[in-house]
Amino acid sequence: MNIAVVGLGLIGGSLCKAIKHRTKHLCFGLDKSGETLHAALNQGAIDRVIEPEGLSQADLTLVCLHPRQTIDFILENAAHFRPGSIVADVCGVKKTVVDQVTLPLRQRGVSFVGTHPMAGREFSGFAYSLDSLFDRASFIITPSADTPAPSIDAVKALAKEIGFARIVLTTPQEHDRIIAFTSQLAHVVSNAYVKSPTLKKQGGFTGGSFQDLTRVAKLNEDMWTTLFLMNKDPLLAEIDCILEKLAEYRQAIANEDADGLRTLLREGRELKEESLLEAKETKKAAP
Amino acid sequence: MNIAVVGLGLIGGSLCKAIKHRTKHLCFGLDKSGETLHAALNQGAIDRVIEPEGLSQADLTLVCLHPRQTIDFILENAAHFRPGSIVADVCGVKKTVVDQVTLPLRQRGVSFVGTHPMAGREFSGFAYSLDSLFDRASFIITPSADTPAPSIDAVKALAKEIGFARIVLTTPQEHDRIIAFTSQLAHVVSNAYVKSPTLKKQGGFTGGSFQDLTRVAKLNEDMWTTLFLMNKDPLLAEIDCILEKLAEYRQAIANEDADGLRTLLREGRELKEESLLEAKETKKAAP
Repeated sequence: MNIAVVGLGLIGGSLCKAIKHRTKHLCFGLDKSGETLHAALNQGAIDRVIEPEGLSQADLTLVCLHPRQTIDFILENAAHFRPGSIVADVCGVKKTVVDQVTLPLRQRGVSFVGTHPMAGREFSGFAYSLDSLFDRASFIITPSADTPAPSIDAVKALAKEIGFARIVLTTPQEHDRIIAFTSQLAHVVSNAYVKSPTLKKQGGFTGGSFQDLTRVAKLNEDMWTTLFLMNKDPLLAEIDCILEKLAEYRQAIANEDADGLRTLLREGRELKEESLLEAKETKKAAP
Repeated sequence: MNIAVVGLGLIGGSLCKAIKHRTKHLCFGLDKSGETLHAALNQGAIDRVIEPEGLSQADLTLVCLHPRQTIDFILENAAHFRPGSIVADVCGVKKTVVDQVTLPLRQRGVSFVGTHPMAGREFSGFAYSLDSLFDRASFIITPSADTPAPSIDAVKALAKEIGFARIVLTTPQEHDRIIAFTSQLAHVVSNAYVKSPTLKKQGGFTGGSFQDLTRVAKLNEDMWTTLFLMNKDPLLAEIDCILEKLAEYRQAIANEDADGLRTLLREGRELKEESLLEAKETKKAAP
């Protein structure tokens, strides 16, 4: 298969490296930075550099840009994709992207498959990309009702080849609802956490729990602003939920209600334990 | 030096192992569980078992019980400590403990040193204790104005011997204010995080950020209820702060205010980056 990767950042670059190191597919790279393309060629992460016109040679194009740019790139270059080929994206929100690009592509005989590789690092850019980035990670695919099964299968097969531990199929809507909780809320909370004036006084005091809670506070604000606004309603629902829950703990502490506080904490512990158990069972059941 | 350790749980057990594996001190163990004492003896974590009366043979007694039990144990056994010896605790809150035990001990010629070893695991009990638990960790000491300097020095020297990377001296009040932010708030937020109804739907979706944010949700609700209520005011201040900050993100998202949201996220990223930088410099400057 000929695979084109558009945007050789952390995800795109890691996809190129995983494809070249673990499969026999040809890999073409397209990026606005000549320096990045040069590095990718030098490191054997791509077989050759292409211009947008070269996308017609790809059986599968993986667009690895930020959400807004992903939509723009696909719409602006719709004429370049070969009829019968597949285009996939890797954005962290799915409904907005799927809704905007599926029909324009289908009208040209190109099928679109929305995906979300659940992997990342605190760093961005090709320099940090790794062929092992997707090991043990989940790969989410969000087909529409009329996405051709062979297109889904081709993307699924590639995901397995390059190291993903688990493939999950779901709808764009369900993806966005869940991701609001598992990823977006984590970034909001982490980013809000470090805003206490106490941050400046804590030299030497930070144990593991502080580091855990604030690791993802170091985020790309441009990308996450877009992701959050593209997923406004599910994210607002999750923020409202944690605001409401935090207020319950606040109340119990303010009232020195030891029994109430212990119950709140026990419920949280039990939910976390159940979720760890389910994750273990899901892993066992994975193909 | 003869060291008595009271309570051979995760922290007490790890202290025993670190003392026996890394120093020449004698280590006596006191615990309500005969089974635990037997295991500790068998594993060479203690030199011998003592009853409360045996505390008179110790130059230093480390009380490693939960906060309420720590205070009760010290007050009930005040007559057993040898005049001229040192008693230290390891509780996660300091003002309440220091305030309640310092004077009764001083009246018997025993000096009290409040400490907080900043280390832990998601598991508790002697079975999980490790002689390496304190490697790279900070050891906080919270002396009062009249804690004898030689007592502080003895505790400090032991902390270095058993592997702590950094010793921090501060007041009980300042400790409690900072710990409310770096540790207690993390446990409250993490425990509240898992209470979204979306938790049940997220099989396969959980990446690193979710795992980070919710790791400490699995807590001992009895111990943390006591710790939170013993540190009510500083903790309430931190909860109020994050509630206020989260509401700002909520507002920007609800208003689809991309510029405002980007600014909020950038400020958080910059604060986190500064804090990482300071932590690095503090580490370099450490003795």
